[in-house]
Amino acid sequence: MARTEPVQITVVGSGTIGLSFAAFYTVSHRYYTITIYNTRRKPDSYTNSKLLALLPLDHPTPAIRYASTLQEAVQNASIIQECGPENLLFKQSLWSEIERFAPQDALLWSSTSGIPASLQSQRMQDKSRLLVVHPYNPPHIMPLLELVPSAETCEDVIQRTKQFWVENGRVPVHIKREITGFVANRLAFALLREAIHLVHQGIVSVEEVDNIVEMSMGPRWAVAGPFKSYHAGGGEGGLEGFFRNIGGTVQACWEDGGRISVGGEWEKIVFEQAKEIYGVIDIEERDRITSKVLEAVRGECTSQSSCYDCGNM
Amino acid sequence: MARTEPVQITVVGSGTIGLSFAAFYTVSHRYYTITIYNTRRKPDSYTNSKLLALLPLDHPTPAIRYASTLQEAVQNASIIQECGPENLLFKQSLWSEIERFAPQDALLWSSTSGIPASLQSQRMQDKSRLLVVHPYNPPHIMPLLELVPSAETCEDVIQRTKQFWVENGRVPVHIKREITGFVANRLAFALLREAIHLVHQGIVSVEEVDNIVEMSMGPRWAVAGPFKSYHAGGGEGGLEGFFRNIGGTVQACWEDGGRISVGGEWEKIVFEQAKEIYGVIDIEERDRITSKVLEAVRGECTSQSSCYDCGNM
Repeated sequence: MARTEPVQITVVGSGTIGLSFAAFYTVSHRYYTITIYNTRRKPDSYTNSKLLALLPLDHPTPAIRYASTLQEAVQNASIIQECGPENLLFKQSLWSEIERFAPQDALLWSSTSGIPASLQSQRMQDKSRLLVVHPYNPPHIMPLLELVPSAETCEDVIQRTKQFWVENGRVPVHIKREITGFVANRLAFALLREAIHLVHQGIVSVEEVDNIVEMSMGPRWAVAGPFKSYHAGGGEGGLEGFFRNIGGTVQACWEDGGRISVGGEWEKIVFEQAKEIYGVIDIEERDRITSKVLEAVRGECTSQSSCYDCGNM
Repeated sequence: MARTEPVQITVVGSGTIGLSFAAFYTVSHRYYTITIYNTRRKPDSYTNSKLLALLPLDHPTPAIRYASTLQEAVQNASIIQECGPENLLFKQSLWSEIERFAPQDALLWSSTSGIPASLQSQRMQDKSRLLVVHPYNPPHIMPLLELVPSAETCEDVIQRTKQFWVENGRVPVHIKREITGFVANRLAFALLREAIHLVHQGIVSVEEVDNIVEMSMGPRWAVAGPFKSYHAGGGEGGLEGFFRNIGGTVQACWEDGGRISVGGEWEKIVFEQAKEIYGVIDIEERDRITSKVLEAVRGECTSQSSCYDCGNM
């Protein structure tokens, strides 16, 4: 990363994720210049207005530079962040081009939610440069970034990326090996699978599942993740004590858990309930309340605990 | 439930859950008198000081009545809430005694996290009276209550119980059928299983799993549960659109998910990491921050959405 200010960040793609990252850099206290390269050639004015909608109400129109060629977009960039379509061939071809034009020490990040760096980098001369930096949507609100290197990604790239995000008050987590779906989604999908099973069995409705999670695990896990929570639940015995006390119930739940598949007959029931209850969801309201939740957690940070505000990891 | 104030609530058992419920009733704006029946004959002064620790700093010492016999404890109660040990024979014998002494219209609630009402009620004359009211720990902080009737529990008991909790600003959810572990724990345990698997595989550490959840799903699900979140994630297509877009990845994660069991070799690794990182956890701090998170969500409630503050369900 260039050590002189300003740092030029190039965002490739101006869909939901690309614009959300651009919004994050725009409101950052650090000095970034932002270049957007529209892979789908949307008008700059359209992209600008979409971006503006993500910024605080009183924020001035950001000085985004729109590049007309990939070369122009990346040739002076310190960070190049790919937020394009989830298409392997597109990404492979993009990286082989970017590699030709980008400065040697530029960080190359893919925002993919599922295509590993080892596949994306196959047409690159130097596969060690590419790193998956998977955000939790939308990244201008949510603090998590999963850093998922391939076996060839070099340690320096991982460390500089981690430093960038910690300095920006975010929580980068280094996923040690490439794995299907990375970690956050795997965890969430495991819970989702059981939730679908219970709705399909008629035990609870879609809305009741959401009420349950919003009023129990959600707020709890915003403060203390599952291991920390159950470690506390075990009293002086910690996590081991927890499993000693109720391991039998945990195992019984695991054995009894649903093994439904995508495309199963549950879809009709679950999709219809969701549509009927929620219609079209106001994402702005959700994001505003989520920010308040994150502030509530942040405001109470102590220097002992993990904290994305003070950078303790 | 008696319609005249004050309502007498008897809590049977003064462990963590019993005292937490007593604390909730103590700070309620409604007019309750609280009776505690210590199944393990702890000194009243000890119980009182434990209860006081759960109340706001400036709260006066509550006027708890301690009953010396079960008959004295329940004979004038409108609500009898069992928070005793998780032991089937204990609960069966307790309910058959309570039934003899309690007013005919008293609500009989068990706080069990796993022993269904259908088993607990087997020695009762009138099995229709018993309802499981399973809190999320600690109930003086967490809004969720799972109402889990047996097939014999009468509808009136369910409805009066639901009304009581809604009037108290809480979120009772009616679980339609008895099921192992009820719903909240089944959902959480499903995620926990995958989390353990990923730590055991060396993909992430215990602390990293907690960081991931605290910085992504936790705050998100405090605001919008999993179905609502993914319904929003699907844009105009809703939940169906979400599965159309990334159903393949979801299925791949499900198929690749860990199937670990309680007692497996993962325990040594995971228990040790948890112990090393967390030691003994400050539950008071966790609960204080959790309250702030819940306030952040509550403060933003709109009359359209489900809300435990204004009673919209």
